[in-house]
This record gives sequence, C-alpha cells and structure tokens, in this order.
Amino acid sequence: MWYFDNAAGLNLAIQEQAKQHQAILTKPAGSLGMLEEIAIQFSAMQSSTSPKIDNCYIAVFAADHGVVEENISAFPQAVTAEMVRNFSRGGAAISVLAKQIDAKLVVINTGTVTELEPLPGVEDKRIANGTCNFTKQKAMTPEQCEAALLVGKTIAEQAISSKADIFIGGEMGIGNTTSSSALACALLNKDAQTLVGPGTGLTPDGITHKVKIIQQALSLHSSCKDPVAILESLGGFEIVALVGAYIRAAQSGLPCIIDGFITSVAALFASKINPGSTHWFIYSHQSAEPGHKIILDALNAQPLLNIGMRLGEGSAAANIVCLLKNALSLHNNMATFEQAGVSEKS
Amino acid sequence: MWYFDNAAGLNLAIQEQAKQHQAILTKPAGSLGMLEEIAIQFSAMQSSTSPKIDNCYIAVFAADHGVVEENISAFPQAVTAEMVRNFSRGGAAISVLAKQIDAKLVVINTGTVTELEPLPGVEDKRIANGTCNFTKQKAMTPEQCEAALLVGKTIAEQAISSKADIFIGGEMGIGNTTSSSALACALLNKDAQTLVGPGTGLTPDGITHKVKIIQQALSLHSSCKDPVAILESLGGFEIVALVGAYIRAAQSGLPCIIDGFITSVAALFASKINPGSTHWFIYSHQSAEPGHKIILDALNAQPLLNIGMRLGEGSAAANIVCLLKNALSLHNNMATFEQAGVSEKS
Repeated sequence: MWYFDNAAGLNLAIQEQAKQHQAILTKPAGSLGMLEEIAIQFSAMQSSTSPKIDNCYIAVFAADHGVVEENISAFPQAVTAEMVRNFSRGGAAISVLAKQIDAKLVVINTGTVTELEPLPGVEDKRIANGTCNFTKQKAMTPEQCEAALLVGKTIAEQAISSKADIFIGGEMGIGNTTSSSALACALLNKDAQTLVGPGTGLTPDGITHKVKIIQQALSLHSSCKDPVAILESLGGFEIVALVGAYIRAAQSGLPCIIDGFITSVAALFASKINPGSTHWFIYSHQSAEPGHKIILDALNAQPLLNIGMRLGEGSAAANIVCLLKNALSLHNNMATFEQAGVSEKS
Repeated sequence: MWYFDNAAGLNLAIQEQAKQHQAILTKPAGSLGMLEEIAIQFSAMQSSTSPKIDNCYIAVFAADHGVVEENISAFPQAVTAEMVRNFSRGGAAISVLAKQIDAKLVVINTGTVTELEPLPGVEDKRIANGTCNFTKQKAMTPEQCEAALLVGKTIAEQAISSKADIFIGGEMGIGNTTSSSALACALLNKDAQTLVGPGTGLTPDGITHKVKIIQQALSLHSSCKDPVAILESLGGFEIVALVGAYIRAAQSGLPCIIDGFITSVAALFASKINPGSTHWFIYSHQSAEPGHKIILDALNAQPLLNIGMRLGEGSAAANIVCLLKNALSLHNNMATFEQAGVSEKS
C-alpha cells in the first residue's frame, strides 16, 4: 500500500550547519529555547540555510460518528454539518485564524450524516453518512478505510501542488474525541479511564458514561492489533483521512503542524504505520483534554503551547504559525558575534 | 512622588460584556483557553468591545553594573555597549523581532560604563558610568534612583504620544540577573540560594559564587525595607527605569507585556510601589532562569509561554504579540451561535 512507502529524510548536514549557526548568533547559546530547535528542525526539513514559511495550507476534515447514538457528546450531531457551513462563511475560529495568518483554508467533508449543499471552500469527499456505531460493529469497512486514507493523500497532494511549505490538519466531528480516545486506547493498550476526558464539555457523569461506552467498544474489537485494522474498527473518516494526509505530507517532505487531541491520535497512527513520518511533525500545544499528554508522550512530542485550548479545527496549530515565523526570522536575520563585533563568553 | 499616583482603572462593565460575548461564539465555552482571557483583559483595558493591537512600542533599557567586578557574569562587561550597537544596527534578537512584528524599537542608554557614539534609534539618558558595586555600597544615590524612574516615565510618555496600544520593556546589562536576583530576594525576603540561576550561562561553580556575592550584598543592605530604598541599594539603572516606565504606562492605561526574569522583577517593584499597576501587565513567558517562577508567583502571573527562553531584551514579550493579535482577532471576528445557525450544547 502507498502509505508504507518511506517518509522523506531530513538533511542532516544542513541540520548540523543550522545548529552551528545558532551557536554564533549574538545571544547566549540556547537562550532562545525552543525557537532555536524549531529553526534547526526547519532547516533540516527544508534543506535550507534560510528556512521560511510563506504558504500555509490548512485542511479541516469533517465527518459524523455512529457512536453518537450512545449519547457521548455534549453537542448534538447536527453541529458537525452546521460547523462546516460556519467554516465556509468565515465565522469559525479556524476561519478567523486562517485569515489572520494569511493561510489557505479548505474544508473536506469526508462523511457528514446529512448531505450538504455546495459551499465555497468545502470539498465533498463523503465516504458514507457517518461511520457505524462501533459499540455494535466495525466503524467502517476496509474499503471505506482505504478510501478515507486516500482522501487524506489527495488533500496533502493538493497542498504540495499549491507550493505549501507548511500543512495543518484540522478536524470537526461531533463524537470524535470518543473515537480518537478509543483508537488511542486500542493502539497503546490503555484502559479507557486513563485517556477519556470531557471533550467539548461533558459533565463528570457524562465522562463516566463515555468511559463505559469506549470500554465496551474496546472489548468488542479486542482482536484488532494492526493499526489499519484498529482504524477500521474504531475510527472516524476525518481521523483516517488525517492519517493519510500526514503520511503523504511526510513522504513528500512537507512539514505538518499537529493540532490537538484528535489530530495527535491521527499523528500517532501515522507514526505506527509509517515511523519516519514523525520527523515532519511540529507539535502546537498540549490540550486541556487530559488524555492528550499521554498521546504526546507516546509521540515523544514537545509542544510549544499549554494555554488551556481544547477546540480542535486546527486552531492551536494555526495559532503557533506566527511563533514558527518568528523563530525562522531570528535564525535568518540575527547578526553573529563576529559580524556585530560583540565579545563572546569569557 | 509621581509614582504613587493611582494606576488607571479597568472598564469592568466592558470586561463583563466581553466575557458574555466569548460565551456565545461558535466554540465550546472556554475552549480557546488563555486566548479568551487575553481578549477579555484587553477589552477591559481598552474600554472597547473590539480591542486591537496596531502600534507596539518596544523600549530596551541598557546599563552597566558595578557588581560585575565581583566576577558574577559569564560575559564581559563590554558586551552591554556592544549589544547597544547591535540593537541599533538590527542584528540583535529584539531588533529582528521588532521588524518581524512591525513594532517601533527604541534603545535607552541609562548608564553604560563607556560613553557611546550617537547611534540611530538609541537615546542617551546616561545617569552614570554604571552603578556602584553594591557589595560595598549602595548601587546608586537617591537622586540617581529618582532620575532613573523619571527616564522610564519619559519613555512611557513617548510611547503614549506615539499612540502605542501596547508597551514592551526590555533590558540589556551584563550583571543584571545578579542585580535583579538581589532585588527580588530583598523585596520578598528570600535567601539568595532559592532565587539565583545561571543568567547568561554561569557554570555551577559560578552560580555558587554569585549566591555568595548576593548574600553578602543582602547582609550589607538588610536595613532597607522600602521598595524604592531597595532599588537604590541593589538596583541597576535599566531596572529602575523599567519600574518607572511600567508605573507610568499603568497610570495612563497603556498595557505592558512583561518579558522575562529581570523585567518581572521590575514589574514586581512596580506592583509594590503602585499596586494597581498590575492590572496593566500581560506576562509573556516563564524563563529558563529558575528563580523566575518565584517572581511570577509573587505577581500571581500566568505567562503564555514556557519554551526555555532566557534572553531578555524584550524578546519573549515581542514573540507573543502575534498570539495576542490572534486572540483579539478571534474575539472580534468569530460568529455567534445565533449568527451562524449552529446548535448549542444539548
């Protein structure tokens, strides 16, 4: 399958050069913290001594989830399609941020329950009217899973064709913290209790119920061990599409900013299916969703922000693009000790 | 004295309106985390339902420190003046960031050891050729301390005249983590051991020596209890000027972004001299300098970033301006549930 093809490699010679360059800029070595690491990582990813971010491509994948009939979300299922309209009209957080950072925004409907009218900026790639309820059967067929992976691949290729130098995946789907929590539990062999949180805003009783539902699904699908088989059993179309998009981006050497809980679970699946893909991931934030820390640790991720965000849509990833630009600007434009005639450490 | 005059008040009615506005935007309530709090704080500070940041004013205060003769810094004293030249020529981190975020940058020489030639963007406000060695005598006279406070006041007023809607104070001064650590210890009645760190890059032995030197200074000046008297005994001209600038900005209702360890100590002194001033402070980051957490806690501060920065110059503060702009853009431009026709929580 296409998704097993190797991810692109980093340019380790340029990475070393970038590291040495950071050491001679007019500041105590290391004093820009993670901004230095980001500049070094981008140098290696872009094979460039002057890394840059000019074109940011944001793809928000939307889908509905059969498991919603188990009453696991604080919001009604109608919100998925309603939010797709809101993305298109510019009223959602990710729409505002995309404009603010001058990014291209596309929304991909991978399977809302109701068919949507044609909307500007929204691509219709519906695989089905939402997934099946995974407490009773597999969420999707193997064919649907492959199709969802392929949607992600296609979108990543669109980003590449449009000369994007950074890719942000976002998601929208009522019930998708339930799906992604179940996916992560199955992949990491964790108990639901350790991973499940309030999502968009469940009460403690709601969380207890969500844990029970996920535990039930995990029992039903306990024979699945292969990452793709787990995606079929417990996934959502938008999550599977994100996995495909991340892998294709990594194969092409397009850096991806990972957003929050759900996208991190997709990144984790990408890393299991295609281990080299993680070299192309930058982690935006640690979500307020409590299980996110566990997913980030499994990815060995060091996110930039921890400011209580828990929205998804790609909003945290879009939020940090300006910090990445600051990091690259410092790398490219600061004077060296020699250039500036500044004395070095005694 | 001018610095005891009340700080401006926040508009609490607008603050409440902003809070209610955040609750009806198309996202789970609270899901933008600190970005929501920032937007609410700016609404209250600017008395506006559409808060904005158009003009950012960065003032970097530079000075030398007599205590440097005790061998407490990893860099030679010459670096203070050399870095002022580097700021002026655009090669320093803060110069690059100011350009990147389209901010006005001014550098104020409050007392380098050597007189500097006239430099573009640098204002000569030298009070003396550096402070005195505070392990042997007071760092400055009461007149010099008042003069340094007044330099800060003047610069804040320049920012206000230029229609700045945000003020960033930065600092440069070899030895100024020693001075600010001593100041914080004296003000908070802490042992040097608990607060002192490597600054620009001391070895463990260097830190032990720095602790000893600060403890010696604290013993010499132990009778000082009043914040202004402590500034005279242990301060630096740039730190005192920052205190004056923060207080004057707060009196005029100009929001200040607090940068790192040294500026936070200045903010702490401003808060003790003029308690209302803290309403006008936004905290950019928690520095890698270990004592910073203690200072931030004393200010009840919740900084946005914790990414291992420890440079000063205003660099972390400048780095977060884009995050503040994102927060305000979301507040001003997102659709409400009603406008977007999105269903609310079940």
